[in-house]
Amino acid sequence: MTELQKMGAAAKAAAAVLRTAGEKKRAALLEAAKALRGEQTALLRANEEDLAAARATGMKDAMLDRLTLTPARIEAMAQGVEDVAAQRDPVGRVLSGETRPNGLKIEKITVPMGVIGIIFEARPNVTSDAAALCLMAGSAVILRGGKEAIHSNTAIAELLRGACERAGLPRDCVQLVRDTSRASSVEMMGMTGYLDLLIPRGGAGLIRTVVENAKVPVIETGVGNCHVYVDESADIDMAAEIIFNAKTSRPSVCNAIETILVHGKIAEKALPVIAARLAEKHVELRADERARALLPNAVPAEEADWETEFLDYILAVRVVDSLDDAIDHIARYSSGHSECIVTRDLRAAEAFTARVDSAAVYVNASTRFTDGGELGLGAEIGISTQKLHARGPMGLNEIVSYKYVIRGDGQIR
Amino acid sequence: MTELQKMGAAAKAAAAVLRTAGEKKRAALLEAAKALRGEQTALLRANEEDLAAARATGMKDAMLDRLTLTPARIEAMAQGVEDVAAQRDPVGRVLSGETRPNGLKIEKITVPMGVIGIIFEARPNVTSDAAALCLMAGSAVILRGGKEAIHSNTAIAELLRGACERAGLPRDCVQLVRDTSRASSVEMMGMTGYLDLLIPRGGAGLIRTVVENAKVPVIETGVGNCHVYVDESADIDMAAEIIFNAKTSRPSVCNAIETILVHGKIAEKALPVIAARLAEKHVELRADERARALLPNAVPAEEADWETEFLDYILAVRVVDSLDDAIDHIARYSSGHSECIVTRDLRAAEAFTARVDSAAVYVNASTRFTDGGELGLGAEIGISTQKLHARGPMGLNEIVSYKYVIRGDGQIR
Repeated sequence: MTELQKMGAAAKAAAAVLRTAGEKKRAALLEAAKALRGEQTALLRANEEDLAAARATGMKDAMLDRLTLTPARIEAMAQGVEDVAAQRDPVGRVLSGETRPNGLKIEKITVPMGVIGIIFEARPNVTSDAAALCLMAGSAVILRGGKEAIHSNTAIAELLRGACERAGLPRDCVQLVRDTSRASSVEMMGMTGYLDLLIPRGGAGLIRTVVENAKVPVIETGVGNCHVYVDESADIDMAAEIIFNAKTSRPSVCNAIETILVHGKIAEKALPVIAARLAEKHVELRADERARALLPNAVPAEEADWETEFLDYILAVRVVDSLDDAIDHIARYSSGHSECIVTRDLRAAEAFTARVDSAAVYVNASTRFTDGGELGLGAEIGISTQKLHARGPMGLNEIVSYKYVIRGDGQIR
Repeated sequence: MTELQKMGAAAKAAAAVLRTAGEKKRAALLEAAKALRGEQTALLRANEEDLAAARATGMKDAMLDRLTLTPARIEAMAQGVEDVAAQRDPVGRVLSGETRPNGLKIEKITVPMGVIGIIFEARPNVTSDAAALCLMAGSAVILRGGKEAIHSNTAIAELLRGACERAGLPRDCVQLVRDTSRASSVEMMGMTGYLDLLIPRGGAGLIRTVVENAKVPVIETGVGNCHVYVDESADIDMAAEIIFNAKTSRPSVCNAIETILVHGKIAEKALPVIAARLAEKHVELRADERARALLPNAVPAEEADWETEFLDYILAVRVVDSLDDAIDHIARYSSGHSECIVTRDLRAAEAFTARVDSAAVYVNASTRFTDGGELGLGAEIGISTQKLHARGPMGLNEIVSYKYVIRGDGQIR
């Protein structure tokens, strides 16, 4: 057995206990929150080791910031764990049921996934966020973070393991892969028989690698090439506010927009208003020829711009001739995350919501609402952009499975 | 573009039409049923070509039987298509919804998967069964059957394509891969960007190959190493009837049982009764040492017997010391399909249903009920043995996805 297979076997054993752990899951999370707060100094010290190593390799400031723990960030992690503990247990809900004519009583009941693997990059808070969600959902978790955060992740994982133990659960409900080589990541993707689900959390490169190479079930998350379409009938001020919010309130996240499509009949009036609002935040516009005629400061858009998740103060702009053209553009370039139509026309709204095939489709609202908390689902383990199992934000209820329990008194077929 | 990529692009275009096709889906299915009946002679002729080729290569009788179409089987196919058409449309159901404090109106609505690929073996009826389910679920389908059935499958697929056209839908809602080489199968498994879901239907070898090699989302189906546990408190006659039914009513299907586990305290009384009933169908018993002491005709079980889906009149038998031992055996060897406890003890029933991690867990009923029709889900496209997306029989409602539709009046975050 390899080291990872041993971890897989330990996780399966822990998962068998978690399957019927009831309130112990909540107790473990409350212990974990307490430990995160109580061991703040030790966590900061471990994090400082990671930061020193990162600085020595010349890590960029934005990356360094993501890697950094502060007392406020540790408090936020503890609070996040408590928020998960405050949610309703997603396990054991009866989704549906019936008594069949032959007297069989059928119930469809939510059950834990079993063992969930998470492969993530340089944010140490993912360790506690993801572990808390998996634990509350009754699954054991194997975490494999980036090497940049190994000291921080190890310290956090040890606190969580201790918390499980104090709550009467196996320590191996939470395990961290210490080997942060590429090989461990590849081995995890092939752990058929151990992992019931693997979720990659990180940039487009990581997600593509996992989707292409995994033999275990995967949920593809997070890449957001999102669009706002400004319909012929749009309220121009509303369009400008929604675009400004969806582009600039937090450009680095997946529910920010990357392209706007503006109907030709409203472009002359709308584009200058939209551009003026975006200029407040110095957003670079990359526009097609028709849009550039109305936007003197825009640079020419290239084909690659329609495909790119800029994650920056950059926005692609295209003028389209119709709702159909907008829907076609989205079908071609979208990553299936979130799209919005700004319109006053009921038929346009209905056609857009029926025909656009993305996880979240908005009428007259910012795409920034595609978030577990904002949609009322609680904290999310990721935002699914595939259609199998779960779509959009995956909260506690989206990381469980179900089974059929069937009670009879001797029925045969 | 390869031939398969062209098919993928055509399927995506068809899927965009199907997304809002409403009643045309049902109309296409009724046309298809009519065509299957009307073209019976042509179908039998095409099937005869396959049968002649199969006989020439010395195909075994059981396989030949699966390949054979008869007027009765064609009628059953037509009836199956009509049954699917009679079901409620699984697309457009509102699963949940709420109005958020900020006024956003959120609905979670079922939508089609998009494009579904099916890789299957030598049964031509799968062509119409699977295509009908995909079509009614609003998805375009790319079928890749075995080379043994290529003439039959081509004839059936052409009838379905014509039916789509007559109902005002694109012919490419249904496509059959003509190239039945291994290469086409491997290429299909890698069609990221074209296939939203790939379902293998066939033997354990096919399913393993697809699960190990696919880069697109897959649902693992059908391997059933199912168990009956006879508890200390069981009604022995009930146990014997359930075991007899679950083993012998149709040994070649995935919901038949392969192993029985009998509590040590009841084994002496129960095993002779069970064995006598099974002897009526000449079931070979492969037993562990303790069971063999009570079963003079049994052969010794080997380790491999606990792992094997015999699909035959063979049953492995083990005596266990406790409910815990039975649950541990199932956790170790089961494929996660269907398991049953026969008991009169409420606590044993509750423990078994809570702790056994299979798609269907029975108390006092035959595992043969794990079937879309028997559970009230309608015809199934397969029986999922994984925990992602769907578990157990996958009917129409299990081959759709969902999206969030969010309506606002200018909300920003």
